[in-house]
Amino acid sequence: MSTTTDHGDVGPRIQVACPAPHAEHERVLLGHGSGGQLSAQLLHELIVPSLGPAAADICLDDAAVLDLGTVGRAAVGYGEGWAVVTTDSFVVDPLEFPGGDIGALAVNGTVNDLAMRGAQPVALAVALIIEEGFPLADLRRIVRSIGRAATEAGVPVVTGDTKVVGRGCADKLFITTTGIGHRTPEARCSASAIESGDAVILSGPVGLHGVTILATRENLGFDADPELHSDTRPLHRLVQTMLDVGGADVHALRDPTRGGLASALNELADTSGVGIVLEETALPVPPVVAAACELLGLDPLHIANEGCCVAFVAPGAADAVLAAMRACPEGAQAVRIGTAIADSPGRVVLHTLVGAYRIVDMLVGEQLPRIC
Amino acid sequence: MSTTTDHGDVGPRIQVACPAPHAEHERVLLGHGSGGQLSAQLLHELIVPSLGPAAADICLDDAAVLDLGTVGRAAVGYGEGWAVVTTDSFVVDPLEFPGGDIGALAVNGTVNDLAMRGAQPVALAVALIIEEGFPLADLRRIVRSIGRAATEAGVPVVTGDTKVVGRGCADKLFITTTGIGHRTPEARCSASAIESGDAVILSGPVGLHGVTILATRENLGFDADPELHSDTRPLHRLVQTMLDVGGADVHALRDPTRGGLASALNELADTSGVGIVLEETALPVPPVVAAACELLGLDPLHIANEGCCVAFVAPGAADAVLAAMRACPEGAQAVRIGTAIADSPGRVVLHTLVGAYRIVDMLVGEQLPRIC
Repeated sequence: MSTTTDHGDVGPRIQVACPAPHAEHERVLLGHGSGGQLSAQLLHELIVPSLGPAAADICLDDAAVLDLGTVGRAAVGYGEGWAVVTTDSFVVDPLEFPGGDIGALAVNGTVNDLAMRGAQPVALAVALIIEEGFPLADLRRIVRSIGRAATEAGVPVVTGDTKVVGRGCADKLFITTTGIGHRTPEARCSASAIESGDAVILSGPVGLHGVTILATRENLGFDADPELHSDTRPLHRLVQTMLDVGGADVHALRDPTRGGLASALNELADTSGVGIVLEETALPVPPVVAAACELLGLDPLHIANEGCCVAFVAPGAADAVLAAMRACPEGAQAVRIGTAIADSPGRVVLHTLVGAYRIVDMLVGEQLPRIC
Repeated sequence: MSTTTDHGDVGPRIQVACPAPHAEHERVLLGHGSGGQLSAQLLHELIVPSLGPAAADICLDDAAVLDLGTVGRAAVGYGEGWAVVTTDSFVVDPLEFPGGDIGALAVNGTVNDLAMRGAQPVALAVALIIEEGFPLADLRRIVRSIGRAATEAGVPVVTGDTKVVGRGCADKLFITTTGIGHRTPEARCSASAIESGDAVILSGPVGLHGVTILATRENLGFDADPELHSDTRPLHRLVQTMLDVGGADVHALRDPTRGGLASALNELADTSGVGIVLEETALPVPPVVAAACELLGLDPLHIANEGCCVAFVAPGAADAVLAAMRACPEGAQAVRIGTAIADSPGRVVLHTLVGAYRIVDMLVGEQLPRIC
């Protein structure tokens, strides 16, 4: 059991809403990795302040943009920077699941973090922490999956590291992947570039990864459904196509991983100051995801995804970008799901099937630990 | 308990000497992380082949050099590349020890891997895997140490990730640090550049880190000795000074971490095809290290270091480089310990106190698990 927090998934609004640390929180809790309030507290009240001046340039987004031309000073931001770096530890349990495994997830997740900053992957570094006694056959299968995913994404593994820790000192295998990318000059792709009127486009169905992990881990029976498999896949080619067609009209990109689409949209609304209206009729929720969520009392919009992205595109370019996305295999099911509006800044609302409006909140607390 | 392998620490000679996998090795053993034969087998027979084409450009050295100008293709090597990348997971046990902690070690170790390729650090990415229940006060102290070490090294933490796994699923805290560096054009610093006649210069005393970890973990009593503390420190400024003075005459650099000075020199001798003669009288072994090693039956040349480096310098530049090193705090105790020779290619021999010669072998098997 565990939960996860990407530093990039926590917006500044949460920081303000955080309670002060309490005595009962004086140990790390699973909730500190949930992506919710405790995560924000850990990041904003402990990690960033403790790093001190070293964190002055820290990027709380999916990936940091570096100006490597300025030796000794990493200019994070969209100035002259063109190298992009991202790091993520993967601790998913189980290691293998329908549609993928920890190896493919580590490669694709890292490639996608780069892609969401408009960058194409150039190199991967892969660090393994292995528990003593882990079967070599399983390791071989997972490393092959890393190799296959990297080859499919067209990115070489350029360096790595392997540590072995004793039995009981790690749970089978953890993988930390770092991606170095090259940002295309036209890509700015920043939450702050979102404008009211932007079309909100989703590249594919939501909820598959999270429900697959849950069903596999808890033996819920859904995993026998051939429709149920993780959507893990690399999105950098799709993003490149979108940028080729939409250029600077592609204002922002985000892959709705932990916390799901709801959390991603709330963060973007918060950072950009727009409101977002979603059309429930347009939301692509596969029947198996809908059924599992209904049974378990989960909201599909809070379920993690590993192979779709949400884009904010200027209205004049939306149709062309959407058409280009649909011409890509990974965007074949792309749909426009909503619109950014000037009203209700920072809010995400759902225009429901029955015509009502309900507020879509961020995920609070932990939902599905060790999802990636 | 664990052992560790940096992909960079395994030379091609070991690969040839590896036995085929045996049935009894069909699970990961602590020895697979030792840096010895099993490590080489894991790397060369499982990891690299399993990665397939994705590993075509993999760098088995401390850090990979990338040509970021060539999008989608990482040209690893010394061609036009100028960005250097390295990744390492740190699993040291205990987390805190005299002279440092896992945080400082993670920063300094990564900075030093860059420095050994002649690169100055530009940015760090830090990924934490934390066990549920880990005290927040300890986490704060260690993250502060990361921040302090990064500030001292002059390198910002630009991005990060935090995962929390359940109790018993990790041993307290693991840190994976990735460093991006900028390689100065004059620095080639490659084992293959070593020539016979080169002076072998060591920047400081050996054995402190490994003996400190062992003494602290096993309560050997040595840890009460104020002389005994880890030598963890960043070496990039020392390296820059050496390159400023020696330029292309600084042929190779290596930090003798796991496997100690003996393993580092054997790898360099093997790769370059020279022999190396060390003068025992010149080797700086602190009395506390010598005493601990004598008691425990260890060879100080096999003990891990985290704050010294060995350099191969053309004879004409050796005195100037040595003098420049001694003017730096981290090189104040630098000494010339030997010479590269054309005879005995691939061998490291020690000219002992009594005038005899003995062969200095690589570390075989595991010695001190979870040393970094």
